[in-house]
Amino acid sequence: MTAAFNFEVKATDGKARGGVITTPRGQIRTPAFMPVGTAGTVKAMLPDSVAATGADIILGNTYHLMLRPTAERIDRLGGLHRFMNWRGPILTDSGGFQVMSLAELRKLTEDGVTFKSHVDGSRHTLTPERSMEIQRLLGSDIVMCFDECPALPATDDEVARAMRLSMRWAERSRAAFGDRPGHALFGIMQGGVTRELREESAEALKSIGFDGYAVGGLAVGEGQEAMFGVLDYAPDCLPADKPRYLMGVGKPDDIVGAVARGIDMMDCVLPTRSGRTGQVFTRRGVVNIKNARHADDPRPLDEECACPACRHYSRAYLHHVFRAQEIISSMLLTWHNLHYYQDLMAGMRAAIAEGRFADWQATFHAARAEGDIAPL
Amino acid sequence: MTAAFNFEVKATDGKARGGVITTPRGQIRTPAFMPVGTAGTVKAMLPDSVAATGADIILGNTYHLMLRPTAERIDRLGGLHRFMNWRGPILTDSGGFQVMSLAELRKLTEDGVTFKSHVDGSRHTLTPERSMEIQRLLGSDIVMCFDECPALPATDDEVARAMRLSMRWAERSRAAFGDRPGHALFGIMQGGVTRELREESAEALKSIGFDGYAVGGLAVGEGQEAMFGVLDYAPDCLPADKPRYLMGVGKPDDIVGAVARGIDMMDCVLPTRSGRTGQVFTRRGVVNIKNARHADDPRPLDEECACPACRHYSRAYLHHVFRAQEIISSMLLTWHNLHYYQDLMAGMRAAIAEGRFADWQATFHAARAEGDIAPL
Repeated sequence: MTAAFNFEVKATDGKARGGVITTPRGQIRTPAFMPVGTAGTVKAMLPDSVAATGADIILGNTYHLMLRPTAERIDRLGGLHRFMNWRGPILTDSGGFQVMSLAELRKLTEDGVTFKSHVDGSRHTLTPERSMEIQRLLGSDIVMCFDECPALPATDDEVARAMRLSMRWAERSRAAFGDRPGHALFGIMQGGVTRELREESAEALKSIGFDGYAVGGLAVGEGQEAMFGVLDYAPDCLPADKPRYLMGVGKPDDIVGAVARGIDMMDCVLPTRSGRTGQVFTRRGVVNIKNARHADDPRPLDEECACPACRHYSRAYLHHVFRAQEIISSMLLTWHNLHYYQDLMAGMRAAIAEGRFADWQATFHAARAEGDIAPL
Repeated sequence: MTAAFNFEVKATDGKARGGVITTPRGQIRTPAFMPVGTAGTVKAMLPDSVAATGADIILGNTYHLMLRPTAERIDRLGGLHRFMNWRGPILTDSGGFQVMSLAELRKLTEDGVTFKSHVDGSRHTLTPERSMEIQRLLGSDIVMCFDECPALPATDDEVARAMRLSMRWAERSRAAFGDRPGHALFGIMQGGVTRELREESAEALKSIGFDGYAVGGLAVGEGQEAMFGVLDYAPDCLPADKPRYLMGVGKPDDIVGAVARGIDMMDCVLPTRSGRTGQVFTRRGVVNIKNARHADDPRPLDEECACPACRHYSRAYLHHVFRAQEIISSMLLTWHNLHYYQDLMAGMRAAIAEGRFADWQATFHAARAEGDIAPL
């Protein structure tokens, strides 16, 4: 492996940026959407299929992997890439967010978090140092700082306390990460929807210095308007020459709005999870394949989509296998949703490169306003 | 489509036969194993992947498809091949066996069977004529006669009664099927484990005349020894120039023993169902991937297997995703099992063609006697 981790902005259009992140495991075209591979698999997809949708990078979850099969075991088996057969870059989260949302009997101190596993009830501790160690054992290409994302609703005082703790943890994460050529460490901005706290957080992170900067603590129930309110200024507080990653976002229109505000990277379980529950994302909005109106419909989900679900199958078939609870339903709908998300990113990248992102956005919203194709 | 349905025996070695069935939708190399695609999908597999394992033909279940999404709907959508995106030949069963094993409130008369759907409780009737109609609507390439397979244990009188009813239904099936160039109708021999009844059934079927002949009523709990006892004489009662299909079989050693006794075609849910329950078939016997001894094992299931599960993943990974109930576990283990079954058939076809089937069988049994690779 070469030592390089690098980000280059190749084009801007308004606040939107198109660029390339270079890692020893391959390039990531930005704006990039990262499918989530929680427990060593992007659910219902083979890695070659994930790559075929156009994904350059996937995300792995420290919390899930540390509990099962454990980071030490994955390390013994040659690291997460080999374990799950994904050749491209992998970003891992720090475990902090999911400890707060999934684990039981959490106890938060200055040092870190102790908790009980939701899998088998065993006790564990996550600290900035342990999170860095786990992400190193996994072989992550892009490592995230350990942070605390407070649950909503939270008072301003609570949000400020959590942000300042996260900034102290960011410093400890930076120190524990050390110098690992070819691997990147991203800081995470916190501060809820309060501008002063967001600015304070950005300054703290910049004074530590990271390879990239995430906007954390959004998409946790505050709503799109409040989220966009933060994104109207937050990316501008971060260094222009580093990637900006909006964590856990989102719906297609969230993603488009975030890119328009200067975000370069995103991840979300929505396309994969929705694939398993029969919610399908298309150019013309969301289609619920369970709906009886599809039962006799010979048309594909989207005639312009090149994914296997659209090329080879009718809505009637997809409706049937969803109703019959066949595994192929999750396989095909997940593939379609990931393909749609990657098409969306590719469309934005091309539009930004050609300076027509405003037009592209207008077309995007017009197709959605039109709605799904008429029933037969 | 051309009109041809044809079977040619190309080689024999002892009683074992190697040949080719030609259909308008493609050739079927025999001995052939047919993966089961119950409800319009070979569970957890995309059709291209099924074909990639080496399968020339798959099986569809009339009982499941008539209830959901219904044969009429599949017909309106262009037939089963287009519906499920399988380009090769499809054999459909008659519904008779599964009505007896799955449906509720069955009532059997000379005319047929009335029953309540296990899906939604709706009432249905299957007769020889309706079964032929459904299989025609599905667009099946190889259609099976409607028969009654009595549940075990059954008295000799009961087996004889069911066999004779099945022979009368075979005559009605033949009449209802009519003349459909390019489509084949197979008769089904019944008679349990009683030689006289099997011979009587074979004579009845031959006097009607079919494009192929199945041995039914085996693999229903009688045990391998009793099954092989019937197969020692039953195939010889059937025309040598037509394919012989052993329904619902079986484990790898059942399949090898059946081929050695002159069987050309088989089907079974075992490789697909076992793929979902973590039972893996290999040259060296069955591996239970759930077993903790695989948790740290970096070796593939079988180093000589070329399937994606063996080429790209460790036993440790397969153990992990099975334990975590990830869909990729069913996808990879089903693919491996189907690949193994097709490798088995290809090995037998080559051995028969080269007149070394006895040696091949000895090697097959020796590898299994050796057992799975030693724990780490």
